[in-house]
Amino acid sequence: MTRAIDRLRTAAAEREASGLRRVLRPRTPDHDGLLDLASNDYLGLSRDERLIEAAVRATREWGAGSTGSRLVTGSTLLHAELEDRLAAFAGAAQGLVFSSGYLANLAAVAALGRGGLVVSDAGNHASIVDACRLSRARVVVTPHGDADAVAKVLAERDEEHALVVTDAVFSVDGDLAPLRDLHAAAERHGALLVVDEAHSLGVVGDGGRGAVHEAGLADRPDVVRTITLSKSLGSQGGAVLGAPEVIETLVDTGRSFIFDTGLAPASAGAALAAVEILETTPDLPERSRATARRLAATARELGLETSEPAAAVVPVVLGPPLLALSAAALCGELGVRVGCFRPPSVPSGRSCLRLTARADLGSDDLAVVRDALTAVAEVKVDR
Amino acid sequence: MTRAIDRLRTAAAEREASGLRRVLRPRTPDHDGLLDLASNDYLGLSRDERLIEAAVRATREWGAGSTGSRLVTGSTLLHAELEDRLAAFAGAAQGLVFSSGYLANLAAVAALGRGGLVVSDAGNHASIVDACRLSRARVVVTPHGDADAVAKVLAERDEEHALVVTDAVFSVDGDLAPLRDLHAAAERHGALLVVDEAHSLGVVGDGGRGAVHEAGLADRPDVVRTITLSKSLGSQGGAVLGAPEVIETLVDTGRSFIFDTGLAPASAGAALAAVEILETTPDLPERSRATARRLAATARELGLETSEPAAAVVPVVLGPPLLALSAAALCGELGVRVGCFRPPSVPSGRSCLRLTARADLGSDDLAVVRDALTAVAEVKVDR
Repeated sequence: MTRAIDRLRTAAAEREASGLRRVLRPRTPDHDGLLDLASNDYLGLSRDERLIEAAVRATREWGAGSTGSRLVTGSTLLHAELEDRLAAFAGAAQGLVFSSGYLANLAAVAALGRGGLVVSDAGNHASIVDACRLSRARVVVTPHGDADAVAKVLAERDEEHALVVTDAVFSVDGDLAPLRDLHAAAERHGALLVVDEAHSLGVVGDGGRGAVHEAGLADRPDVVRTITLSKSLGSQGGAVLGAPEVIETLVDTGRSFIFDTGLAPASAGAALAAVEILETTPDLPERSRATARRLAATARELGLETSEPAAAVVPVVLGPPLLALSAAALCGELGVRVGCFRPPSVPSGRSCLRLTARADLGSDDLAVVRDALTAVAEVKVDR
Repeated sequence: MTRAIDRLRTAAAEREASGLRRVLRPRTPDHDGLLDLASNDYLGLSRDERLIEAAVRATREWGAGSTGSRLVTGSTLLHAELEDRLAAFAGAAQGLVFSSGYLANLAAVAALGRGGLVVSDAGNHASIVDACRLSRARVVVTPHGDADAVAKVLAERDEEHALVVTDAVFSVDGDLAPLRDLHAAAERHGALLVVDEAHSLGVVGDGGRGAVHEAGLADRPDVVRTITLSKSLGSQGGAVLGAPEVIETLVDTGRSFIFDTGLAPASAGAALAAVEILETTPDLPERSRATARRLAATARELGLETSEPAAAVVPVVLGPPLLALSAAALCGELGVRVGCFRPPSVPSGRSCLRLTARADLGSDDLAVVRDALTAVAEVKVDR
C-alpha cells in the first residue's frame, strides 16, 4: 500500500471517530417502500407522466447527450426554448441553462464578482462558498440573514465593483433571506444582488415564481437569480436568470458554462414540461408549503426544535451527529425516509433531520410522519 | 440603468474589441445539416438507438430526476450498477458518478489535494484549474507535458501530502501526457496521480479503456482517474475511478459530490448502454483514432499547423482569434461544423480550429472535410 493511500485511511479513521463517515445507500424506484420526506422533489414531479414522456420525446428527437460545450455543439433549439420559458415564467429578461445548479452558481458568482467585492451570507450553500473562492474577489461573509451587516460592508468598503449573494430559502434551515433589504443595500451601492432560488422556485411566490418575484424584484436588472431544475422541477440541471448583460457576461466568461458539456436533452425536455405544469397548475406550490407548515406544527407539538418554514424545507435540530443519525434510522424503521444533515453540511452541534414537504402528501402520509417524529422526540428525551 | 449593469456593458465592449465575444447558436437535431466535426461524440453514440432506448427505459423506471444529493435520495440502484460497470471496464477498483465531469474534477482534486501540494500541468482543463483553486493547496504549475519538472517540484518540496494532476489527452491540442513518467515521480514521493480521461476513455487504449489502462497503471491504488460520460459515452455526467480509500474520501468530503443533485436516470442509463457497446465492439475506438490520423494528415498536406493526434482531437492552429473565427465560419459555409477555440480556452495567439474524429465518419465525409480545409489553407495564405 502506498503512502498516499495510508494517508487517506488515517483521515477516514478520524472521520469515523467523529461520526462523520457517510455511506451511499442506493435506493429502489419506490424509495425502498418508504415514504419519501428526504428528496427535493417538492412538487412530486420527478415521477409525473408528463415529465417522463417529455424526457422520452426529447431523447428520441435529440439523442442521449448534447455532445459538447454549449458554445460548440451543446446548444440545441430545446435548450433555447427552455431558457425562454424559464425566463418568461419567472419574469426575467433572459435565462441560461447549465448542466447543474452547482455549476450555475459557480459561473454567476465567479464571473460576475471577479476581482471585486463579494458579500456572502454565512449560511449560503456550498456551491456559493466555492464560487466565492473561485471569484478571486475580496470576500466578506456576513452573519446569516443580516441585511444591515451587508449594507454596512458595502458602505465601509465603498468599492466600484461589488456583488451580494444569498440563498433565497436556505437549504437546511428553510428560512427566507431578507431580499428587499438586501436589494436596497445593493442598489444604493451599485452592486449586483445574486439570489439562489434552488429551494424557492416552484415553491414560493405567485404560482411558484420564486422569492425574488414575490419580493417584487423580478424585473430589476441588478438582480440575478440562479435556479435548479432538479428540485421542484423534478429534472436535472440549473440556470441563471437575469438581464441580457448578465447572460452575455456568463456566455463570454463563465468558466463552468464555457468548459462544461451542455445539459442532456432528456433533462431539458423534462424541465420544460415541469414549467408548463407550473403554469397550468398555479396552486401546486401552495400545497407543498401548506404541507410543510403542518409538518413543522407537528414537530413543535412534540417538543422538537424546528422553524416556521418559508418554503418546503422543515428542519428538526437534534445536535450531535450520532443522535441525528440514529433518529434518521429510527424514522426509516418506522417507514419514513428523512434527510440527516451533519457537518460540513450544517454547523457543528447543529446536526438535524431535514424533512421536505411534497405537494402530493396526503393525511395518511402525515399520520405516518407524526408517529415517526413521536418516536424521535422520545429518543431525544431519553438522552 | 444601474451602475452594475453599466460595468458589465463596458467589459462586454472590451471583449468585443478583442474578438472575444461569444454567441450561442442553438442547433437542430441534425446539426443544421452540417457534417459534425465539432462535438465530442467521438464514437457517434449519442444518437445510437441502444443509448436512446436505455435512456427511455431508465426514465420510465426511475423518473425524470434523481431527486436529491447522492447522499440523500439521489443514489439509485442504477447509479450503483453504472459505477460497478465503469470500474470493471476500466480495470479500476471502484467508481463514483457525478452529474458532470467538471464536478468530478472539482471533487477529486479539491478533496484529495486539500491543504497539501498540488502539481498541475500548464495545459490542464479549466475544471482542473478551478479544482486547484478550491483545494486550498500550495499549487505549482509545471510546463506542459514535462514529467521531469513535476519530479523536480516533488523532490524540492518534499511534502508529506502531494498530488499530481494532468489531463490524459489534452482537450484542444489532443496530445498525450507522459503518464508512466508522471506516475514514477508521484510514486517515488508518495503522491497521488490524478488523470483526467475526458478525451481518452472510449478512444485510447485496449478497447477504449483509456490512457491509464494503456500505460499499465489501471490497478495502481495511487492513480485516480476522472472521466466524462458526455463525450465518447454519448450521455451526460462524470465519474471518478480509483481505490476504495479514494472513493470513500470523496463520499465523505467531496463538496461537489455531497452538495450536488445526483445524475438524472436517463443519463445514467445511456452511459451504461455505452459501456456495454464498448465491451462488445472493441474496435470502435480504433476507428475513431484512425479517422483522426487521416484528418491530421490532410491538414498537414495542406500546409496547416496541426499535431499527431493521440486520440480523436485534431487542432488546426491559426493564431489570431478573428482568423480562427472566420475560418470556422468558412468551414460552416462549406458544410462542415468545426470547433473554434479562442482565449481563454487556448493561450493568446494560439486560436485554432478543433476538429474531432468520429468512429462513424466515412470516405465521403472526409472528402468534404478536405475541401473545407483546402479553403481554410487558402485564406490563411492570403493574409
